[in-house]
Amino acid sequence: MTSNSDITVLKVGGSAVTDKNASEGSAKADEMERIAKEIAGFSGKLVIVHGAGSFGHVYAKEYGLDKGFHKEGLLKTHDSVRELNEMIVQNLRAEGIPAVPLNPLSFSLCEDGRLTFLYTDQIAEMLKHDLVPVLHGDVCMDTKRGTCILSGDQSLPYVAAALHAKRVGLGSATDGVLDSNGQTIPKITPKTFDSVKQHIGGSAGTDVTGGMLGKVSEILDLAEKTGIESCIFNANTPGSVAAYLKGETVGTVICKND
Amino acid sequence: MTSNSDITVLKVGGSAVTDKNASEGSAKADEMERIAKEIAGFSGKLVIVHGAGSFGHVYAKEYGLDKGFHKEGLLKTHDSVRELNEMIVQNLRAEGIPAVPLNPLSFSLCEDGRLTFLYTDQIAEMLKHDLVPVLHGDVCMDTKRGTCILSGDQSLPYVAAALHAKRVGLGSATDGVLDSNGQTIPKITPKTFDSVKQHIGGSAGTDVTGGMLGKVSEILDLAEKTGIESCIFNANTPGSVAAYLKGETVGTVICKND
Repeated sequence: MTSNSDITVLKVGGSAVTDKNASEGSAKADEMERIAKEIAGFSGKLVIVHGAGSFGHVYAKEYGLDKGFHKEGLLKTHDSVRELNEMIVQNLRAEGIPAVPLNPLSFSLCEDGRLTFLYTDQIAEMLKHDLVPVLHGDVCMDTKRGTCILSGDQSLPYVAAALHAKRVGLGSATDGVLDSNGQTIPKITPKTFDSVKQHIGGSAGTDVTGGMLGKVSEILDLAEKTGIESCIFNANTPGSVAAYLKGETVGTVICKND
Repeated sequence: MTSNSDITVLKVGGSAVTDKNASEGSAKADEMERIAKEIAGFSGKLVIVHGAGSFGHVYAKEYGLDKGFHKEGLLKTHDSVRELNEMIVQNLRAEGIPAVPLNPLSFSLCEDGRLTFLYTDQIAEMLKHDLVPVLHGDVCMDTKRGTCILSGDQSLPYVAAALHAKRVGLGSATDGVLDSNGQTIPKITPKTFDSVKQHIGGSAGTDVTGGMLGKVSEILDLAEKTGIESCIFNANTPGSVAAYLKGETVGTVICKND
């Protein structure tokens, strides 16, 4: 089943708009601005999910939020990712994009680290009116662990499936999914995944969310279940976000069929 | 049915913490701080819902948000009430209260001005861990009108019912519900409502959400449907919030039975 909707879900990777190797909360202001300008050229229905990058990750690790509840850790982590979300929303607004900040802690729930519910009816209604909802990686309440990390990579396919999105793009900080020689793998399907996954590394820097292999697993699962095709591409290459939004295939395609 | 839970839902009226007669966005900083200190003395499970007061109301009126969708109006109104929410959360945090900002636009939906869904499972999970969720009056997506105003007075009883709250308190800027002589009506029940409602005025200043009569209608409906008893009292009277949270009956009681 491929959806007939005209909804695009775009992930803006945390590593593309923040310095993941830096200490807590280091934004790449120029990249945020450039990416916002590229998004501004798109007139279709769009949901943006951005990663947390260096915002929150340090706290999340320090307080072990992925393993259990920690009050101060939850508040600090959430405040930090909200701050990043606010920056990104303001960059989008500056380009005339009617960006609406949506903090996933407010409308989702996990069980043992897996997303069990994320409310999307309000998002669907926003899209009808051409608003651009902007979600992000966040801390999430977890019925087993107390809290967990709800990465953008996990909420992205959930949102895409719930909204019957037409296209999913993941703007990362590498030229798609790279093999062990640093070459972009053009296409990954359920059949080829086993043979390529040994060559896929985790992402560099502080990351509590599974890196590139985690991303590929999540959206390959989406492709299998819904038929929605995704691209993983380098959001730091000028023009790539605009190219993807124009309908071009960029980076690595993740899809159901060979 | 009276709930066996130990959850208290406290409304902090917009008129108690902002100047509703002033122009857009005028906070009563001293009152916010004092009320936060009074709340800090409470150790039970607590959800706070605050009104929007002069934040957002001016934009909501200017753009006619209650009648239909307006992109700029929605964004400006939401930004404004988020700002107020942030101030209140920071005041609560300063007193050691683990306040979590929850913006209702993110997790609710209305139909023709009435709330049809507001997600509360994440709130229930937060309460298990003694976090204090802080909701507020907000603009809301509306499946009929595009947008509408979701007042704190409307979300308050919804949240109270969904969480099976034990007590509901509405801290307003008057000494409870006043009759035409300015005297506090001690008790309102479904039976007595008809005889007192002619004496209940709308709230002064800019208000798009129905004033005192609206408040009473909403929580009387809650009392009828769930048996949950509410108090409307003056949050600007020092000590009243603390007294209410200690279990005292303050101001006007709204309940099911005479």
